[in-house]
Amino acid sequence: MDPESFRHEAHRLADWIADYLASSSRYPVLANVSPGQVRAQLPAEAPAAGETFDAVFADFERIILPGITHWNHPGFFAYFAITGSGPGILGEFLSAALNQQAMLWRTSPAATELEAVTLRWLQRLIRLPDEFEGVIYDTASISTLHALAAARERAVPQVRERGMAGRSELGMFRVYCSDQTHSSIDKSVILLGLGQSSLRKIPSDDQFRMRTDALRAAIEEDRRSGITPLAVVATIGSTSTTSIDPVDEIATLCAQQRVWLHVDAAYAGVAAMTTEYQHLLTAAATADSLVVNPHKWLFTPFDCSVLYCRHMDVLRSAFSLIPAYLQTNDPSVVKNLMDTGIQLGRRFRALKLWMVMRHFGASGLRERLSEHMRLARLFASWVDESREFERLAPVPFSVVCFRAIAAGGDEGDAINERVVELVNRSGEVFISHTRLNGRFAIRLAIGNLHTTEEHVRRAWTLLNGAVIEASRLH
Amino acid sequence: MDPESFRHEAHRLADWIADYLASSSRYPVLANVSPGQVRAQLPAEAPAAGETFDAVFADFERIILPGITHWNHPGFFAYFAITGSGPGILGEFLSAALNQQAMLWRTSPAATELEAVTLRWLQRLIRLPDEFEGVIYDTASISTLHALAAARERAVPQVRERGMAGRSELGMFRVYCSDQTHSSIDKSVILLGLGQSSLRKIPSDDQFRMRTDALRAAIEEDRRSGITPLAVVATIGSTSTTSIDPVDEIATLCAQQRVWLHVDAAYAGVAAMTTEYQHLLTAAATADSLVVNPHKWLFTPFDCSVLYCRHMDVLRSAFSLIPAYLQTNDPSVVKNLMDTGIQLGRRFRALKLWMVMRHFGASGLRERLSEHMRLARLFASWVDESREFERLAPVPFSVVCFRAIAAGGDEGDAINERVVELVNRSGEVFISHTRLNGRFAIRLAIGNLHTTEEHVRRAWTLLNGAVIEASRLH
Repeated sequence: MDPESFRHEAHRLADWIADYLASSSRYPVLANVSPGQVRAQLPAEAPAAGETFDAVFADFERIILPGITHWNHPGFFAYFAITGSGPGILGEFLSAALNQQAMLWRTSPAATELEAVTLRWLQRLIRLPDEFEGVIYDTASISTLHALAAARERAVPQVRERGMAGRSELGMFRVYCSDQTHSSIDKSVILLGLGQSSLRKIPSDDQFRMRTDALRAAIEEDRRSGITPLAVVATIGSTSTTSIDPVDEIATLCAQQRVWLHVDAAYAGVAAMTTEYQHLLTAAATADSLVVNPHKWLFTPFDCSVLYCRHMDVLRSAFSLIPAYLQTNDPSVVKNLMDTGIQLGRRFRALKLWMVMRHFGASGLRERLSEHMRLARLFASWVDESREFERLAPVPFSVVCFRAIAAGGDEGDAINERVVELVNRSGEVFISHTRLNGRFAIRLAIGNLHTTEEHVRRAWTLLNGAVIEASRLH
Repeated sequence: MDPESFRHEAHRLADWIADYLASSSRYPVLANVSPGQVRAQLPAEAPAAGETFDAVFADFERIILPGITHWNHPGFFAYFAITGSGPGILGEFLSAALNQQAMLWRTSPAATELEAVTLRWLQRLIRLPDEFEGVIYDTASISTLHALAAARERAVPQVRERGMAGRSELGMFRVYCSDQTHSSIDKSVILLGLGQSSLRKIPSDDQFRMRTDALRAAIEEDRRSGITPLAVVATIGSTSTTSIDPVDEIATLCAQQRVWLHVDAAYAGVAAMTTEYQHLLTAAATADSLVVNPHKWLFTPFDCSVLYCRHMDVLRSAFSLIPAYLQTNDPSVVKNLMDTGIQLGRRFRALKLWMVMRHFGASGLRERLSEHMRLARLFASWVDESREFERLAPVPFSVVCFRAIAAGGDEGDAINERVVELVNRSGEVFISHTRLNGRFAIRLAIGNLHTTEEHVRRAWTLLNGAVIEASRLH
């Protein structure tokens, strides 16, 4: 594509995307296609000859776009709602053009150093001590994997060199989290070769917070059985209900027991920059590592996850490995991103984060987070006042868990499932669900930058309509 | 950022990027900054209030751009040269705006199905049998990690549930690769808890190809010692010299020994679409898994790595794990990307790959790969005819390894290091190095779409000038 054709097409996309951002709500939030529908419209082979971008873009609009679930839609209330904000999208556009691969400092001094700068900015905004050092990965799954890899490096003698198989001197190891913890912890212990049985899920209390007494008992019981505690994962903003584990108590226990404490604040960690949550991460300040995802609730396009670690040297000693073709004479002060983890290649993700933080400024970010929390509390108040719905969990941040009050048990679950289906079928909003204490729970998650009170109100109206229809159908 | 401001800024970037692509050669390829220089120009805290995009972009040009090593520069000949092509950049721009998170089919039917379609296209172009199923990850490190995780899942009984520590019934396991294999294999065995000592590096022959006789002897020796072979990693296009392991012999051995064969074709696999290399992956057709990176030599902006696997069910059984909040009633034909690996979230990377493949078409991709290989052979012929330089390895693809003929040993190495420094200091080209048979070797890697014979000729001129200067200085 010659530069003038590129210019023409880039301008076309600039307009298309500006229009899209202005009116993403004209699309159904949840893609209304059947499985295989997108695939069936595309040929089985790549084209033999090159095609015009016109033809490609026409197919994008005709075939791909109907198969898009609009995460950038103001009515997206499912999972955790996210935003590809304007400055973030522009950052990705530039990043793709520069095509940085920041494995070594010299292969992108700007990406390496801007990552350090923006992560320090974020760290200070969320009031984490300067002793933490940050690194950007793609996803929280990978951040957590590295945190637990560092914990393993510390707890299992010579694990880098000798691994764990066939070592009769090694006993079993244990990782602890609550029964509300994200599934990425399970995947991490599997990948690390600890096995899913090494993960002990501690019961949570009636507000879905890890029970420290149960954690202590579990650790003590394990020690008596010769099992070595390897790490505890505490969560600030759990996936189902956004509950907050008692990190202060857990941190004290981990210090006593000399166990690595990893804090999963992937979604809610950013709330620590608001005045109301200025103490959110105070107890986490003594943790060994913490993950927070700017791509979740900080208006940064997916992907951008940050691992903060107090012992990045442990992570580096687990992974640093410099083949001849990557040796440089750069001064020793230089940090090479490839040394902090499994991935050799690193994308220039700091650029979008920097543009987002500068565009909004600290005050702009705070305002928007506070507004999302206000909207969630407002919605929760409607649920609480309603005769049709009941709330199922506290609302510390921007997610509300609730359900239609119906005949209990399976029948109630079926009605609630039907409510979710009916609401999602409207195309105006997309909500998801979870299970709490064995019961089906509807989740409304606020996090998109373009979501206003009007959209939340519309979701409430649709839910109330759906509950009538679902009960009638039943 | 309101939509009209976004429109304005996106048009500005469209022009800036078009100009950049038209004349990236006006920048020094290798960033000419000192460690800390970028960082020192940026404040220690995020701005309190939001700033205009004008101000942010001015700082981008003033502070960030000088710290960029220009991977999209036609004089980039270091490591593996890559390209963020026009259609690929446009694909990333759209992808950032749509902000897809394709963990479940329903969260992005288009991303899920377009990934399957484009990977089938690529697979047929490189003549891999349809029995392979593909998945996109970020980097080859992660693709290889998953390949070896699947191999471990098959070789180590109950590893998902029970892990490897504290299991006296388990012996040791071994992964085999050559002494030329990429460092990501080392990192993978570390992460998987097998330990670096589980990796046995098989000597290579005088053309840097794994010696099958040595591999067979190693496997047999290990078996006699009670060590279980877990996987063999063969490389097609090794990192230092792009050598090609004898995959046919290795595949036969792996079949006899019932060992998982993973083929690292991250860089060179795409060459299988050219006529001259139509049989490149013939022997790999019986491998268990193979990695190929469109972000390396297929003009797709970083990141986009593809793992092809004949047993994606093994990978799924290692990692599939569906918490309540991610359960759906979607039909069972639906594939959810989150089930294939550690990362829950998946970016819409197939979009850029689709745009690249359609824009160039099969013939356009082939032509460009062949041209890069022609340029490498041309450069190699200059080296061979020169009295100043000697070639150090065969040139099967687009990378040439050579060095200045100088007094041998350390002195020769020092002169060659100096040659590389002098050439890179020119700002016109960027070359890197490796070590071969203990000696410093200069690498010239061709892979950027905008590289022409003129750029290669210029590199040769600079090298010849540098060797005179380096010898004089010495």
